[in-house]
Amino acid sequence: MARNLVAAGHAVAVYDLVEDLVAACAAAGAASAESARAAVSDAEVVISMLPASRHVRGLYLEDGLLAVIDPSATVVDCSTIAPATAREVAGRARERGIDMLDAPVSGGTAGAENGTLTFMVGGEGAVLDRVRPLLEHMGVNIFHAGGPGAGQTAKVCNNMLLAAQMAATAEALALGAAGGLDPGTLSAIMQRSSGGNWPLNVYNPWPGVMEGVPASRGYTGGFLVDLMIKDLELALDAATESGTPVAMGSLARNLYRLHRQVNEAGELDFSSIQLLVDPAAGGKPGAQDPGCKWRCSERV
Amino acid sequence: MARNLVAAGHAVAVYDLVEDLVAACAAAGAASAESARAAVSDAEVVISMLPASRHVRGLYLEDGLLAVIDPSATVVDCSTIAPATAREVAGRARERGIDMLDAPVSGGTAGAENGTLTFMVGGEGAVLDRVRPLLEHMGVNIFHAGGPGAGQTAKVCNNMLLAAQMAATAEALALGAAGGLDPGTLSAIMQRSSGGNWPLNVYNPWPGVMEGVPASRGYTGGFLVDLMIKDLELALDAATESGTPVAMGSLARNLYRLHRQVNEAGELDFSSIQLLVDPAAGGKPGAQDPGCKWRCSERV
Amino acid sequence: MARNLVAAGHAVAVYDLVEDLVAACAAAGAASAESARAAVSDAEVVISMLPASRHVRGLYLEDGLLAVIDPSATVVDCSTIAPATAREVAGRARERGIDMLDAPVSGGTAGAENGTLTFMVGGEGAVLDRVRPLLEHMGVNIFHAGGPGAGQTAKVCNNMLLAAQMAATAEALALGAAGGLDPGTLSAIMQRSSGGNWPLNVYNPWPGVMEGVPASRGYTGGFLVDLMIKDLELALDAATESGTPVAMGSLARNLYRLHRQVNEAGELDFSSIQLLVDPAAGGKPGAQDPGCKWRCSERV
Amino acid sequence: MARNLVAAGHAVAVYDLVEDLVAACAAAGAASAESARAAVSDAEVVISMLPASRHVRGLYLEDGLLAVIDPSATVVDCSTIAPATAREVAGRARERGIDMLDAPVSGGTAGAENGTLTFMVGGEGAVLDRVRPLLEHMGVNIFHAGGPGAGQTAKVCNNMLLAAQMAATAEALALGAAGGLDPGTLSAIMQRSSGGNWPLNVYNPWPGVMEGVPASRGYTGGFLVDLMIKDLELALDAATESGTPVAMGSLARNLYRLHRQVNEAGELDFSSIQLLVDPAAGGKPGAQDPGCKWRCSERV
Repeated sequence: MARNLVAAGHAVAVYDLVEDLVAACAAAGAASAESARAAVSDAEVVISMLPASRHVRGLYLEDGLLAVIDPSATVVDCSTIAPATAREVAGRARERGIDMLDAPVSGGTAGAENGTLTFMVGGEGAVLDRVRPLLEHMGVNIFHAGGPGAGQTAKVCNNMLLAAQMAATAEALALGAAGGLDPGTLSAIMQRSSGGNWPLNVYNPWPGVMEGVPASRGYTGGFLVDLMIKDLELALDAATESGTPVAMGSLARNLYRLHRQVNEAGELDFSSIQLLVDPAAGGKPGAQDPGCKWRCSERV
Repeated sequence: MARNLVAAGHAVAVYDLVEDLVAACAAAGAASAESARAAVSDAEVVISMLPASRHVRGLYLEDGLLAVIDPSATVVDCSTIAPATAREVAGRARERGIDMLDAPVSGGTAGAENGTLTFMVGGEGAVLDRVRPLLEHMGVNIFHAGGPGAGQTAKVCNNMLLAAQMAATAEALALGAAGGLDPGTLSAIMQRSSGGNWPLNVYNPWPGVMEGVPASRGYTGGFLVDLMIKDLELALDAATESGTPVAMGSLARNLYRLHRQVNEAGELDFSSIQLLVDPAAGGKPGAQDPGCKWRCSERV
Repeated sequence: MARNLVAAGHAVAVYDLVEDLVAACAAAGAASAESARAAVSDAEVVISMLPASRHVRGLYLEDGLLAVIDPSATVVDCSTIAPATAREVAGRARERGIDMLDAPVSGGTAGAENGTLTFMVGGEGAVLDRVRPLLEHMGVNIFHAGGPGAGQTAKVCNNMLLAAQMAATAEALALGAAGGLDPGTLSAIMQRSSGGNWPLNVYNPWPGVMEGVPASRGYTGGFLVDLMIKDLELALDAATESGTPVAMGSLARNLYRLHRQVNEAGELDFSSIQLLVDPAAGGKPGAQDPGCKWRCSERV
Repeated sequence: MARNLVAAGHAVAVYDLVEDLVAACAAAGAASAESARAAVSDAEVVISMLPASRHVRGLYLEDGLLAVIDPSATVVDCSTIAPATAREVAGRARERGIDMLDAPVSGGTAGAENGTLTFMVGGEGAVLDRVRPLLEHMGVNIFHAGGPGAGQTAKVCNNMLLAAQMAATAEALALGAAGGLDPGTLSAIMQRSSGGNWPLNVYNPWPGVMEGVPASRGYTGGFLVDLMIKDLELALDAATESGTPVAMGSLARNLYRLHRQVNEAGELDFSSIQLLVDPAAGGKPGAQDPGCKWRCSERV
């Protein structure tokens, strides 16, 4: 993301706990900052991306970064965090006169490198309009979801739906394969029917159906099961807050937990849920002859 | 379907238990037959569409229709039935030298009228090629799913996935609305993100988001909850036969049963599952203020 | 069961496809019959126990056993089958003047040997009263569930509840263990609290908590996962027939399917669902250190 | 609880935000304190019961109650809160030299009045032994669950299991009723079979089966749906913390949310989940003829 901003001619100061990442950006023409505080001083726009709610609250509130950001600056936090935390931090920024947007992304590392990310933005529309040109160097879809926190809410809703439809797609493919259908043929049919969805379009979970997706390279790369579970936690915490019934989303979360645990799959791509539903998915298409033999190698 | 065949210049003989339907076809230029037997005698191609497995077995086997069909004819059964029944009847047809395809459709009454149905076909490819020109007068997507019964398997897999992703979409919209998002805005975002799916593209379940869909006319018309539950039974029976875990599909079925029962919704469109997940969906977008008040009007 | 009847002084003629079983009964004093027909001729009471609905229909209707049973005899079918089949066969018996009861049992092989089975009986109360002394030689609880088929309905309801509460108990124990509790201590607490249930009383699923149960001998013996899945099919078919929402029961079934598939657990006792929920259950109590390492030993 | 301590001859100082409750205790012989601080000064044992984690943290830590409690005193917090909060507050007490136990109860208001509560206690066994005589004036089962927080963990595990088995019991009864069984007869059978559990023993959810339970008085009184949902949140938060798969518990939570929402049931007893699963449960036993007609009284 930083490299795309540099390439577009912007002056970018970068800070990260991982020095190699800073060095890589510096090599691309960014200035390397000694600290987060150093990076944001004098910045017109501050862009952050952190792992979880506690880091965002820690950095901006507890570590006091808000205090050193110029009130005329705009803060764009691209972390995926709890909507409530996003609202809280944006509110505290507002008290200091700083405009802050929550702008979680989707599109993965490939999207970040190619500048094809999707941004789901919460905050004032006028503020978004001001930084939109900047975001357009990093992404192709810039959605204004609503007020503060709305970007996070949109992201967690989307990812809860994604988890559910990936699991449901895996079940449909397993059911078809068990009935003798070729998973590729069934995928092609459902893709153009009412079962059509994003996984069938670009991220088929059955090995070998689609080239270049994690399912066709042993479920490596992609979006990890551990990260999907983390996103589902945000979604289901939001559901707890509002009391919304999300039975399908909750079941998807538990299937992912079962998958992580039984198949030690935390670091596989999330489309590997296919292996929970049908361990034979690694075998020859259409066969229930397991290509993968799951064994209890040792029992105390 | 018959009218589209007539319009394409084919000679069509029609029979149905409902005389008005026969009359409507006759008015369009079809010949009206006195019985199923009369309709199929001398036919080169026999096309049937019946409510359930027992009717297909009843008509072709028990009532002996196979015995009066010319062995050189091709039978295309467009009913949605159990894959096992489709295989059984096709096998009995084969014994008499008759080629039979299972060819369930999707696309609803609108698709039937406009000739834009999707056909999912099971049986020999060569037989399908022979009748394909005929099917193309009635539909735009003609998929060859595999051998006998494969059309039915593809259909039930697709509809199980559809039920699950409709319910999951309803949950995501409810969660977003509870978090203050406008359902239309959230739909637009998810549609172009990894949550994208057929319901968001053409069949949005939230009232008012999309024009011309059941959700925007009180969930009337469309594909009834009762019919979705029937299709889910076929899918889950197939899962029982093969022992395939289909937790998401099973939960979707039970949510539909709850919806039918608690909301007396059997004759509403299946996208009305939105009302189970969020009874406020009928109200103003983004509000939890219930537009629909569910009441126990009387308790013994 | 036959041996207990013999021991009580009754004249018993026995037939089974497995000759060793017949021989074992003969050694205990029963007469061995050459066929089912031979066994039932002249019998005052006919007692049968078969694997599934199709065998019961096959034996009594298709093979015509009803035709050779004396109309004054009483038939007691102890198979666990579909309520609808039980009603059908009992109705056909009635046409021949024969009183027939459905009387599925619970209590396992130990209950059969010790004469401590539970009978859930469907049919007329007066008929049950007539054979009750006989049943009391084989079991201790003889319940009159209602009219024909009611014994089967009671059995499938009970077993659906059992499957659900075994799975829920396994989850509660896993959650407690993950939180540092000793599963034995937690079991003792819940057993005497509102979480109390049959599994906690006599069939604890966590290894080592209770002596003499399958969980404490590697989940061998007991009631197999495959058989629980079969019973759940009967329950869920009944739910389909009546349209009853059984979301918990359906989820339990799918967890058992996942367990069978991922852990190759079809022939383990059904309390082994604990291993799906917490593969560490085999390890030291309270630890998440897996005692059992599940591995994909081979992937194509 | 206070009255039972007074009746046992202990000197009790009482404080509550609700003055009437303090007055009621004073009338029974307790001293009424002006504030929480006044109540705990000079106390040998401090017993608290608060609605949620934030109140416990607020009272003991933020409001500084720990600072005014004598280090030789023992604190017994009977609130049902998050295990992590219980551990945190107990840790802070320890720093001041104060022994603190978490001791959530079950048994409801009836148990509190009759002195028949169950206490699930976390903390050191020696500390529990010291206050055990006191607890025995208020309850009959005093369980030592383990170290700090273990009482809370035991309580949330128990209540998650309770919610799941109540919902599963409701499904089994609905399935039996749909199949023509009398719910009372079916309850009696399952109670003494492997489906046996606490709800069937003392808290049957079907109206009229058992006297004196909420189900037989319109689901009034008892343990509210809203409170069960709150307890499930604690359980499922703990599951999120440890990553434990709790599919059954999660589904139970979502069924309760659906029930609360669709039936406006937040203030009904939690056994009213029977009405979600079978709205006809209010009608005559064994009939699907709904005694309660659920209507959308108004739709915008």
